[in-house]
Amino acid sequence: MNLDTLYSELTLPAKAKLVLLVLDGLGDLATPEQCYLTPLEAASTPNLDTLSKNAAQGRMVPVAPGITPGSGPGHLALFGYDPLEYQVGRGVIEALGLGVELKAGDVAARANFCTLDSSGIVTDRRAGRIETEVCEKLCALLSSKVKKIGDSQVIIKPGKGHRFVVVFRGQGLEGPLTDADPHHEGSAIPKVVPIHKESAKAKKAAKLVEQFYKAALPLLAGKTPANGFLMRGIAHQPAIPSFEERYRLKAACVAVYPMYKGLAQLVGMSRLDGCQTITEQFERYLAEYDNFDYFFIHFKATDMHGEDGDFEAKRKAIEELDSALPVLLRRRPEVLAITGDHSTPCALRAHSWHPQPVLLSSACSGSDKLDRFTETGANLGSLGLFEAKYLIRQMQANAMMFDKFGA
Amino acid sequence: MNLDTLYSELTLPAKAKLVLLVLDGLGDLATPEQCYLTPLEAASTPNLDTLSKNAAQGRMVPVAPGITPGSGPGHLALFGYDPLEYQVGRGVIEALGLGVELKAGDVAARANFCTLDSSGIVTDRRAGRIETEVCEKLCALLSSKVKKIGDSQVIIKPGKGHRFVVVFRGQGLEGPLTDADPHHEGSAIPKVVPIHKESAKAKKAAKLVEQFYKAALPLLAGKTPANGFLMRGIAHQPAIPSFEERYRLKAACVAVYPMYKGLAQLVGMSRLDGCQTITEQFERYLAEYDNFDYFFIHFKATDMHGEDGDFEAKRKAIEELDSALPVLLRRRPEVLAITGDHSTPCALRAHSWHPQPVLLSSACSGSDKLDRFTETGANLGSLGLFEAKYLIRQMQANAMMFDKFGA
Repeated sequence: MNLDTLYSELTLPAKAKLVLLVLDGLGDLATPEQCYLTPLEAASTPNLDTLSKNAAQGRMVPVAPGITPGSGPGHLALFGYDPLEYQVGRGVIEALGLGVELKAGDVAARANFCTLDSSGIVTDRRAGRIETEVCEKLCALLSSKVKKIGDSQVIIKPGKGHRFVVVFRGQGLEGPLTDADPHHEGSAIPKVVPIHKESAKAKKAAKLVEQFYKAALPLLAGKTPANGFLMRGIAHQPAIPSFEERYRLKAACVAVYPMYKGLAQLVGMSRLDGCQTITEQFERYLAEYDNFDYFFIHFKATDMHGEDGDFEAKRKAIEELDSALPVLLRRRPEVLAITGDHSTPCALRAHSWHPQPVLLSSACSGSDKLDRFTETGANLGSLGLFEAKYLIRQMQANAMMFDKFGA
Repeated sequence: MNLDTLYSELTLPAKAKLVLLVLDGLGDLATPEQCYLTPLEAASTPNLDTLSKNAAQGRMVPVAPGITPGSGPGHLALFGYDPLEYQVGRGVIEALGLGVELKAGDVAARANFCTLDSSGIVTDRRAGRIETEVCEKLCALLSSKVKKIGDSQVIIKPGKGHRFVVVFRGQGLEGPLTDADPHHEGSAIPKVVPIHKESAKAKKAAKLVEQFYKAALPLLAGKTPANGFLMRGIAHQPAIPSFEERYRLKAACVAVYPMYKGLAQLVGMSRLDGCQTITEQFERYLAEYDNFDYFFIHFKATDMHGEDGDFEAKRKAIEELDSALPVLLRRRPEVLAITGDHSTPCALRAHSWHPQPVLLSSACSGSDKLDRFTETGANLGSLGLFEAKYLIRQMQANAMMFDKFGA
């Protein structure tokens, strides 16, 4: 019997509140440069310390040993969706990240401006890394002139620098398509084709991309250096069973950044928008306490400072989070999990594959007798080292949401 | 290559004695109410302590993260059978639990008396929870009047309160069938049908159930309040490769309770019956030492006291076990594993999903330098956190039963 089927058959209705608090990129490395302390270890965290005494701890492998996840797979795993099974195209992630509210069937592409010579050969794949302002102007131009192709709507949204996204919204569309990108300079932009050749919907989408190029390229003629564009990761929003049907949990997302709101929305969580600080997010949770079973609360600063390699700032962000915790705990959820979606070690200035520490506190989590919540401490916890996709199952078990298996 | 095939190909003949000592429901939780000690930690266990110094330790996930197993899946995993692959119907487990010696092809059902109104509607699914004595009388009545249906034998055995089991023994029978139980009051007893609709054997079994109702219901007419009965979990004893063919180990079971004897029998272990105390069980092991390669010794008290939420009694049961250990060690097996089939935390008064601690002692287990055998200590052990179904492979490896894989 399939394990997901077993979980589904054993699932009981929720009678508790479950909170997943994600400190993005929380995990870090102990290095001699920082006296062998991680930011989490160096931080003063009295509230996390108190929680630790009555919690289980462990470490989570985001996807698989050695795999560094982007935010998409990292969060899908935390939401209990196998990131290898549920792959979300880069275009979709990028569109979500830019705040486009995707609908089922939308086909989204990552795009970026490039430089073409007179015969259509790509001479600079990033158009000299134009300023965001220039990108915004060019996107506004394209948006105003190419609103529809056939019966399909075209949505164009600028990103940072030379980057933007294009979303095709219409009937009977599907990805994935090959890239409209030669992936090196000196070649022309290749024509896109369906990756699954037999798909009529993908053929329609490929035709749309071709027509979009025909309409858009002439509008850029003469613009220097951005007189062309490339499109990659062209795919539709995948069909993902909703959080509620999969776990019997009515879920809400309290995030600040559009990417995380978008990922939560992808699995059918409600978005509780309008918060700017972690204290506001916790207050929003308090206000909505009675309306949902499960809350995903996302804290971004830890990841940002990790990517900047700023140890002190990451430490302070953790302390800021810790100081705000008592707000959350005014209405303590029956099950509280605190973790990251992956590690973002300051020493690497990037996401990494290192297992993130996790703390799980409930009336039946037991105590691992650890005085603090840290990477090294979590190595000693009863949860051991496990795949992040099982965290939701641990949370459900702690919420007494599973019937016994067998007699 | 399939992993089971690899194990099988590498397996050498046994030249050692392997003992699996199961303290049922051993695992527990540290809570502030008990000064953050588990019963195993609070117990005085000089003999386990001595063993720990020369043993490897770890924690085992009974089935999968968050899944709480019944005794069936819990023990099948300890015996090395994936409990998702080898599912045993509730009827079979219940029959084994009541000491029915099932044969291959037997179809067994959990049954219980209920109350029907004059039009056959279930008005009380448990017949007012009649006394065991009443149940025994009614079962005796049914047994004496319905011994056979067609060419199939009918075996009826009373359980506790309103519960009993019915076993159909004949040629060409198979489950699983749907339940003869509306699962709520106010409906009639539904007709059973095969769950795998194309199975001719299951159709025959369904027909038998129908005929059994026709024969048995009139015998209960006028009995108050138990004038009807429901049947659930109707399935045949599954085909399970025997322990001996799977592991090249001649195995014996030294258990007191019929359920565990039954589960051992299901995988082809010999039953060494007649023991009442753990000391008698250990003595039986000594007496049979030369006749088997593998001994499964089952100690029930830890689980019972866990289910009662009686911390002190669970602690004392562990101390009783510890005191008896020197008897077992008079002829020390080359490989000794001590663990539970799942956790039964006193605080939960029920089986749980929390990983159970395991201790593995052999000449080549190495030492994890742990002075005691406890949940928290086991978190630090070299065996790490692993699925219970691999314990038998660890035991075989420690018995030098695996050839090298590859050059």
